[in-house]
Amino acid sequence: MSNDLFPEEIMSTEDKLLHIQNMVADNREQEVCDLFLRLTEHELSHILESFPQNQRQSLWVCVPDEIRGEVLAELNEDARLSILQGVEAKELNEITKDLDAQDTAEILGSLDHELEADVMQSMDETRREEVQSVLDYDDYAVGRYMHTDTVSIRENVKLEVVQRFLRMKNVIHKGTLELMVVDENNRLLGTLHVVELIRHDPEAMVADVMEQPETVLDTMDAIEAAKFIRSKHHHFAPVVNDCGVLMGQLTADDVFELTLEESEQTVMNMAGLDEEEDLFAPIKKSVNGRTLWLGINLATAFLAAAVIGQFEAVIAQVVALAVLMPVVASMGGIAGSQTLTLTIRGLAMGKIGGSNRVVLFNKEFWIGIINGLIWAVIVAIIAQLWFDDIMISVVIGLAILINMIAAAVSGVVVPLILKRFGQDPALSGAVILTTVTDVVGFLSFLGLATLLILN
Amino acid sequence: MSNDLFPEEIMSTEDKLLHIQNMVADNREQEVCDLFLRLTEHELSHILESFPQNQRQSLWVCVPDEIRGEVLAELNEDARLSILQGVEAKELNEITKDLDAQDTAEILGSLDHELEADVMQSMDETRREEVQSVLDYDDYAVGRYMHTDTVSIRENVKLEVVQRFLRMKNVIHKGTLELMVVDENNRLLGTLHVVELIRHDPEAMVADVMEQPETVLDTMDAIEAAKFIRSKHHHFAPVVNDCGVLMGQLTADDVFELTLEESEQTVMNMAGLDEEEDLFAPIKKSVNGRTLWLGINLATAFLAAAVIGQFEAVIAQVVALAVLMPVVASMGGIAGSQTLTLTIRGLAMGKIGGSNRVVLFNKEFWIGIINGLIWAVIVAIIAQLWFDDIMISVVIGLAILINMIAAAVSGVVVPLILKRFGQDPALSGAVILTTVTDVVGFLSFLGLATLLILN
Repeated sequence: MSNDLFPEEIMSTEDKLLHIQNMVADNREQEVCDLFLRLTEHELSHILESFPQNQRQSLWVCVPDEIRGEVLAELNEDARLSILQGVEAKELNEITKDLDAQDTAEILGSLDHELEADVMQSMDETRREEVQSVLDYDDYAVGRYMHTDTVSIRENVKLEVVQRFLRMKNVIHKGTLELMVVDENNRLLGTLHVVELIRHDPEAMVADVMEQPETVLDTMDAIEAAKFIRSKHHHFAPVVNDCGVLMGQLTADDVFELTLEESEQTVMNMAGLDEEEDLFAPIKKSVNGRTLWLGINLATAFLAAAVIGQFEAVIAQVVALAVLMPVVASMGGIAGSQTLTLTIRGLAMGKIGGSNRVVLFNKEFWIGIINGLIWAVIVAIIAQLWFDDIMISVVIGLAILINMIAAAVSGVVVPLILKRFGQDPALSGAVILTTVTDVVGFLSFLGLATLLILN
Repeated sequence: MSNDLFPEEIMSTEDKLLHIQNMVADNREQEVCDLFLRLTEHELSHILESFPQNQRQSLWVCVPDEIRGEVLAELNEDARLSILQGVEAKELNEITKDLDAQDTAEILGSLDHELEADVMQSMDETRREEVQSVLDYDDYAVGRYMHTDTVSIRENVKLEVVQRFLRMKNVIHKGTLELMVVDENNRLLGTLHVVELIRHDPEAMVADVMEQPETVLDTMDAIEAAKFIRSKHHHFAPVVNDCGVLMGQLTADDVFELTLEESEQTVMNMAGLDEEEDLFAPIKKSVNGRTLWLGINLATAFLAAAVIGQFEAVIAQVVALAVLMPVVASMGGIAGSQTLTLTIRGLAMGKIGGSNRVVLFNKEFWIGIINGLIWAVIVAIIAQLWFDDIMISVVIGLAILINMIAAAVSGVVVPLILKRFGQDPALSGAVILTTVTDVVGFLSFLGLATLLILN
């Protein structure tokens, strides 16, 4: 294939995107289709997600038939739906027929129930049962993500036989390098990495060179499973059910994607976004998705306003207080979000627990005091230069100190409490923290002012 | 080894941490040491990072000699330094002597220059040159991260010969499954996955089954390289210099870690934290690390205060304005941070560029208008119920609308501009955005109030 479709092979993703945007803008559809033949499902799903929804269907025409299923499975839910608009069960069946049950279940999961039932209906029975068994797992269970295309061998054969078997059947590829050693009831006895076939004497028996792997349960939370595998520095794990029967495996790729997903979730959740939010989601959907978060924030903002409302008298007398008020809240908010982020990541990585919570608390508490003192002095000096009123300067200094200590304390305590109650600290931690720093900030600043200034 | 040291093999990381904390608290040092013998370098570095700094040195005693180097290389810089306090060049040499040049360079990079020079001095010449060549790369270059323990073969040999060679030399392991095919000048001709040795006829020649891999340059930014490899759905890439000579490889693990690092960086940077910030960093270091961010925030907070200061007259007359002021700023801040986060992640993933910037802008702009209208009405109604003053309600409604549109616009535009100027949008995006929403919020609310209410 000629190289001038993609002049540079090492082209940044952005440049590639620009290149395709130009083709689309110039209606060079044939070139787009030629190019798509050379791209992986990963690249194609990335490109589709990078185009506005109304252009995705026309790009979809160029996606080669053989990998349409893989591309669909890789897409985020919004993008998948924008492409599948108006599609029929028959066509979906055609697209998904070569996919494994997990990918098929992933795609079916985003369809409406009627269409899903239609697609299931038109499958042959074996496949329907297979897909149904995946759909029976919880949304985030290992069973939803595992690969079932494992290669099983017996323990009482020679490595040389295994090697011949693999060559004959042509069943291994780069993604599945671990062979599963099972007994006659398909219970897992061990695993054997393909490399061992090369490293060991061909006359050796499987039983003598196989390893005892760490396994994960099919019903376990997939992200927890990925964390466990990673903590062992392993790159894969066989998946078994509670009877020890081999169900599939989580490959290195699965572990990778799950770990990355967890990290992405934190970024998105901390801003009150759904982690699957499509860049080009329909406006209506985005507005809906963000409403809850804005609503919660409004409630907390009015709570803060109510606190200020208690002090109308002092503000009426000393308007400078209204001017300086946001400085107290803002410094607390930033200091608190630093501590909060540190705690949330530490919790997510399993580094915080037991006695070190106290150590972390003490450390952040002292940082709160020290930072509080430093910034109290700086803010007091600036306030003094600005308003030339020693009482105002003393009040704002004290309020900054109090609020930064409160910020540090709640930055550690809020996520720990949320976690204790089974909530995701990344999801609601930030809004609770801001409420604390706003309320404490306004209360201490205006309260002290009332005590010390109002007469 | 008895199993009651770690009663459950599938123990969550938190439980494991608790278990070890108990052992340490009870001074059962021998048990800790026994346990450490069974853990991987990954688990050990994780555990060390989960203990307060003053306990790390006593735990370090239990880390088996053979893997001390690997553990050190895995630790974050703070933790590494807290363990290496007072260590001498000779001991460091002992610890690092079996590490590859990359890991050694990583460790040396965190030492002070005198100690680094001492350690370099006591290496033999070959090794010193090797390590120096890694240190010569930029901090984030591929050359700093690549693995140099590649296995090279020639193209004109039979697969069967390769297989015998590998068995004899025992050079492959699970981490390096790709063999590098090079010419006599060590220029890369292709790669051959170990699996191909099994899948193909042993009589076939390397030249006939090798693949043409995507390569990355040793001087390229490592995170960019990882993104590129991932976009190709590859799991590794040979690293070459600009003459095409093989320098090493980025393994699946390297690509994984680099991608994860990028995502973690965003989380930490958005809160103004260093991505390597140690949970138990010394207080002094943490205070220093957070000062810059708090200082910048103070400047922007006073900027917002200065805006309010322009409107003292209207606040003195209508104190309710001071009460409601933070609601306007807060709603803008939240709405803006949602758009900002979406844009930052889209940019990081290379999904935003060229013409879709306009589409994204338009979409978020409309979301800003719609959300602005919705929340303007809600806030106006609440304000009306509270203060029973139609002018205040109109003013706050308009201000909310204006600020939420400003938030949406700057949530898209600020990161795009930062990126254009080569800045990391995650690092300063949030603080700039908050400044915009604070200033616009106070300006529109108090400005409109002055126009419409002040008399």
